[in-house]
Amino acid sequence: MHDTIQGLFSPASIALYGIPRGLKPGKVFFLGLLDQGFPGPIYLIHPTAIEIDGFKAYPNLHQVPGPVDLVIIMSPKETVFEALAECVKKKVKAVILYTSGFSELGEAAGRDDEERMRCLAHEGGLRILGPNCMGIYSPGSRIAPFPGMPKTQGKLGFISQSGSLVNLFVNLCSAKGLFFSHVASSGNSADIDLADLLAWMGQDEQTGIVCTYCEGVRNVARLLDALRETTPKKPVIMWKVGLTRAGSRAAASHTGALTGQSDLWRSLFRQFHILDVCDIEEMCDLAMAFYHMAPAGSGRVAIVSGPGGPAVSAADAVERNGLFMAVPGKESLRRLKELLPPTGTSSANPIDVGLSASFELRLYQEALEIILDDPGVDAVVMLGGGASADMSADYIQGIIRAKGRSDKHIMAIAYPGFVQIDQEELLTPLHEHGIPVYTTPERALRAYARMMAYYRYQALRI
Amino acid sequence: MHDTIQGLFSPASIALYGIPRGLKPGKVFFLGLLDQGFPGPIYLIHPTAIEIDGFKAYPNLHQVPGPVDLVIIMSPKETVFEALAECVKKKVKAVILYTSGFSELGEAAGRDDEERMRCLAHEGGLRILGPNCMGIYSPGSRIAPFPGMPKTQGKLGFISQSGSLVNLFVNLCSAKGLFFSHVASSGNSADIDLADLLAWMGQDEQTGIVCTYCEGVRNVARLLDALRETTPKKPVIMWKVGLTRAGSRAAASHTGALTGQSDLWRSLFRQFHILDVCDIEEMCDLAMAFYHMAPAGSGRVAIVSGPGGPAVSAADAVERNGLFMAVPGKESLRRLKELLPPTGTSSANPIDVGLSASFELRLYQEALEIILDDPGVDAVVMLGGGASADMSADYIQGIIRAKGRSDKHIMAIAYPGFVQIDQEELLTPLHEHGIPVYTTPERALRAYARMMAYYRYQALRI
Repeated sequence: MHDTIQGLFSPASIALYGIPRGLKPGKVFFLGLLDQGFPGPIYLIHPTAIEIDGFKAYPNLHQVPGPVDLVIIMSPKETVFEALAECVKKKVKAVILYTSGFSELGEAAGRDDEERMRCLAHEGGLRILGPNCMGIYSPGSRIAPFPGMPKTQGKLGFISQSGSLVNLFVNLCSAKGLFFSHVASSGNSADIDLADLLAWMGQDEQTGIVCTYCEGVRNVARLLDALRETTPKKPVIMWKVGLTRAGSRAAASHTGALTGQSDLWRSLFRQFHILDVCDIEEMCDLAMAFYHMAPAGSGRVAIVSGPGGPAVSAADAVERNGLFMAVPGKESLRRLKELLPPTGTSSANPIDVGLSASFELRLYQEALEIILDDPGVDAVVMLGGGASADMSADYIQGIIRAKGRSDKHIMAIAYPGFVQIDQEELLTPLHEHGIPVYTTPERALRAYARMMAYYRYQALRI
Repeated sequence: MHDTIQGLFSPASIALYGIPRGLKPGKVFFLGLLDQGFPGPIYLIHPTAIEIDGFKAYPNLHQVPGPVDLVIIMSPKETVFEALAECVKKKVKAVILYTSGFSELGEAAGRDDEERMRCLAHEGGLRILGPNCMGIYSPGSRIAPFPGMPKTQGKLGFISQSGSLVNLFVNLCSAKGLFFSHVASSGNSADIDLADLLAWMGQDEQTGIVCTYCEGVRNVARLLDALRETTPKKPVIMWKVGLTRAGSRAAASHTGALTGQSDLWRSLFRQFHILDVCDIEEMCDLAMAFYHMAPAGSGRVAIVSGPGGPAVSAADAVERNGLFMAVPGKESLRRLKELLPPTGTSSANPIDVGLSASFELRLYQEALEIILDDPGVDAVVMLGGGASADMSADYIQGIIRAKGRSDKHIMAIAYPGFVQIDQEELLTPLHEHGIPVYTTPERALRAYARMMAYYRYQALRI
């Protein structure tokens, strides 16, 4: 089963069936492959053109000289079955079916067509992703459905029924230093569906975390099998939509999905410890936690902060999320008292280094080192910054140095409105050194608490 | 009572008591006043200097030639009572006491000192804000506690026990086009506290919405009076911290606040329909809704979107937040069907204009106009953008044109990862035309639903 999907993610050759001559949506697939530098042959199939953008075009698959592993079909709906028949004859391994206009229209004809695709795939010995999908992004295989996607390979997997979310989620994550192993947009999921992709990502060594945007599945039994196989091996984060009547109707006209009952899904989340989220920001927050923080400690959190108000709110968030405020030891308290100015600060946890620390960065740096030394501390939330962009860059280097000397969890906060620190480029060194960056301590602690609960659950399960 | 606080927000003259010679934290008050262009006299008080930064300095308040309305005291803790005695003699109206080291240290001496300040204020006929506070930001009176704060006056009021949040929240909001009437940081609240400031902002005509960051209050009866007076007149948004044990301890060492029981606070939220929030992002999201959207309609929401996935999730968010998915009328459906390409789109709500709309912006523009014409629609969530920065700018102008012709609620979404649209400067015209901009439809709808529930409650109360 896994072998048959492999052809989708690491084809040796690709044909683009029905590539448009001009700059129409389908052209992005070609541009995406060129941009990534796909190393194998790319064959363009067009009914009449003999050349497109300086590349030779073929009238059909039969005319293509060599073998073709993957065909991306973007020809009009009426030609899809003819194209699929050519794929079967050519012994193609996998098809990405971009063309839309099937079950998402809500009519019987579309559902019948998809049933026919399913049969054709089974009988013809090929696998079909789609219809109505954006296909694959696999930087390791140099495949992307759009130009301009990152060329860096990472360990995040993403399975999305929505094609546009591929682009959006990859953009969002890569701006925060989270890169991808493989991404698949499954669209109407006539043949390959979430269960197949999940099982494949479960056994894929490059993938460490699986994120999914899910509208619905056809076959719950197969999903159960895939979850049983995958969830013990790696965290599965799921943004399940269509759990309300309004969302369910919207999903039906988007990818023709049957979204299912919310009770059923909620019990799946519990049973398999799936990390369910309800928007793209929460999905990214949680992926960032797992991406950068390995299992360690028992969730005793210290907060080191310049501004006092957000630190108080962070302490609330520690307790509200079922984590523990670390109790600094006597030695730490002595060293902190020695370090910090006597007024406007606090050496208990939250460690309030005071606003003057923006001008005197060693207060942040040394407070962080002292608290990382404390055996009663598992994780530190750092909320601060310098009085200028240059000072903020130094502040960030201080966090990176401390991280280099400690295995404990460190989360950096780029607080909204904080002078200088919210400039994205300043944060890049943090991303590069595997330090997660959140906009608020409340969001950091929500994600951290869920990650720690997951690790605890996995430890119990073993 | 209100009159006595007025002196704080619109003084004719200000003295800075204990201003440092060098660039120490206290200097920011002076820089803030110069930066705003405070029109009245500013007197500098320093024990030995005769001149600071080219401005004449006085050894004490008695030597100051004219009357002084407001004194900002930043001299060392030991000199505070001497300074206050001078203020009484000089018949000063109000004092901002920046100096810290009192009840927040958790010792009896600090609490006694604050009791003494309270008595002194009552007997001496002046009002004291602080100690351990950052004072006032009132762009209309050209007063700011830091340089670089916006000079534009708006209708948002903010009362914060945390001084640093003044800067952070003002920065965050003004970047989104939300400006302030008056902001007060109350610190340890020895004399003037949340209740006083709330009552004052309640009757202040410039203030349309009151945001508060609250650690605790000393006198619940006075808070009840202030809430009873203020909440029927304008929305009160409250970020109440210290509702967990960890947060409560943190608040005590931050501003010496007694945070009180969470049950009590929760019943206050309900009774007065206070809009409680739990972080700075939620506070800003909600403030933005009230800032730009007047009471109208009954919460029937249409979603116009290019990407399909986020639109499905938005439909879930509509129902999950107790709002209603608008049902477009026959005429709208006919016009939408005529407008939109036959595949990859949906003319039911969510109105999925398809990804090609990024290249063909009139699809967004006309879909928005059609749905705004529909009498069954009260609000539209717009999720999209152009294929380039220039096209996104055109897309935004399209929203502004539609807004100019309709009284309905329009929310724009600058979706994370969306090509071009997330560039802050592109969004400025939306802010200037009173169109709220959220990062996700889920956040927009959460804020919108709470705003609509508030308006419904107010209508019932009348």
